[in-house]
Amino acid sequence: MHFTAETRLDEGVLERDFLLGEIPGILWTPPEAPLSPVPLMLLGHPGGLTRLRSRLSGRALRSTAQGFAAVTIELPGSGARPVSASAEQARADLRSAISAGSKPSEDVIDRLILPLVEQAVPEWQAALDAIQALPGLSGPVGISGGVIAIGTRLALVEPRIAAAGLFAGSYVPRTTIEEARRVTIPVHVLLQWDDVENDRQRALELFDAFGSREKTLQANMGGHTGVPPFAGEDAARFFARHLT
Amino acid sequence: MHFTAETRLDEGVLERDFLLGEIPGILWTPPEAPLSPVPLMLLGHPGGLTRLRSRLSGRALRSTAQGFAAVTIELPGSGARPVSASAEQARADLRSAISAGSKPSEDVIDRLILPLVEQAVPEWQAALDAIQALPGLSGPVGISGGVIAIGTRLALVEPRIAAAGLFAGSYVPRTTIEEARRVTIPVHVLLQWDDVENDRQRALELFDAFGSREKTLQANMGGHTGVPPFAGEDAARFFARHLT
Repeated sequence: MHFTAETRLDEGVLERDFLLGEIPGILWTPPEAPLSPVPLMLLGHPGGLTRLRSRLSGRALRSTAQGFAAVTIELPGSGARPVSASAEQARADLRSAISAGSKPSEDVIDRLILPLVEQAVPEWQAALDAIQALPGLSGPVGISGGVIAIGTRLALVEPRIAAAGLFAGSYVPRTTIEEARRVTIPVHVLLQWDDVENDRQRALELFDAFGSREKTLQANMGGHTGVPPFAGEDAARFFARHLT
Repeated sequence: MHFTAETRLDEGVLERDFLLGEIPGILWTPPEAPLSPVPLMLLGHPGGLTRLRSRLSGRALRSTAQGFAAVTIELPGSGARPVSASAEQARADLRSAISAGSKPSEDVIDRLILPLVEQAVPEWQAALDAIQALPGLSGPVGISGGVIAIGTRLALVEPRIAAAGLFAGSYVPRTTIEEARRVTIPVHVLLQWDDVENDRQRALELFDAFGSREKTLQANMGGHTGVPPFAGEDAARFFARHLT
């Protein structure tokens, strides 16, 4: 991993761009470190760091305000990263299904999401290795948002992750539901109830599947991108309970 | 309304028993009144004030800590209040259904819940009239918990109620779902996901029906009586947003 740019944000937070091999990423660290080692949030997203940068910075500032560091990396096939032919085909098939007004088939969802999970999860683990090797950043780890199938797999396979705040707003393969049954860390799931393009029933099925003794579903109104501010605050309290 | 007993609780909160006609009730008022007029929480419950007293006091202290007053009254047919023959019959039919291992029919639910709503709602409104006539207690009103069909009806018909925190853990007649469609005040619904005796699907249907622009469902683990402490805190923040 090497840093390629550095900005000091108004709040004294240090925002650093980095490359992990060929994968771009951003690391935010708080100005003071009341918690030592500093807990780390993995900020998930739907892909496209450049486009999402200001939204990600906003989410990161919520974490740094809690005394946490935050990190994100680009998804496979997003931004400037190469898209595989099969991912291209799956996206085209998804668009056809949507423009024909039908629900995408399980097959399309599997082809779209499962290879992404297979590729992204080891990349996030490698990013975690690199960040935790930096001084003071080896604290407990949380995941926040992003493609829920990736978050679920990470919650299952990565023992350094202590708590998962997931956003039930992306496609859920059946495989992910099976994996959720074996997840045992605390889980806080946000669902936008009136997100018309989201499969609410599948989201409820996924929440039901999580094997965690502590799991919370919070459903709000406001459409896909309209998560209300108080929901962000409730999620922040979830992470405070489990990472500090 | 006349007061029949008075206790000063440790926190300086005044707890007063009263009779409203023949209906027993309890009023809690905070030691200081930073908010003027003081917001008032209507504390719902499943019936049986004597048995529930310490739990209700605990909930009331959460409200008084927020600077709110809190009030509750006995339900029709509970505690020392007379039970009608038809309510007795409905309870017997419910017990038969449950001990036969079957879901109670819509008919049993209607006979059990609808007359209770019809009788209880005007009683809560009368209690509200009486409390708001006391000095300083005419602030905004919230409902918290209790029989969800009563809370939903109150949210629909009582314009002084500004926010409803409901507990989806009691029987929901279809009538209640229809009424929910016309509710427009902010609603915060708690659901215990692993409450095996609760009809989760019906609870989700009720949440879906609420016509409110702001509505939140929070589902947690812990069984019927195991609402986690953080859920109480989240509900308190919901009331703080809407009553202060």
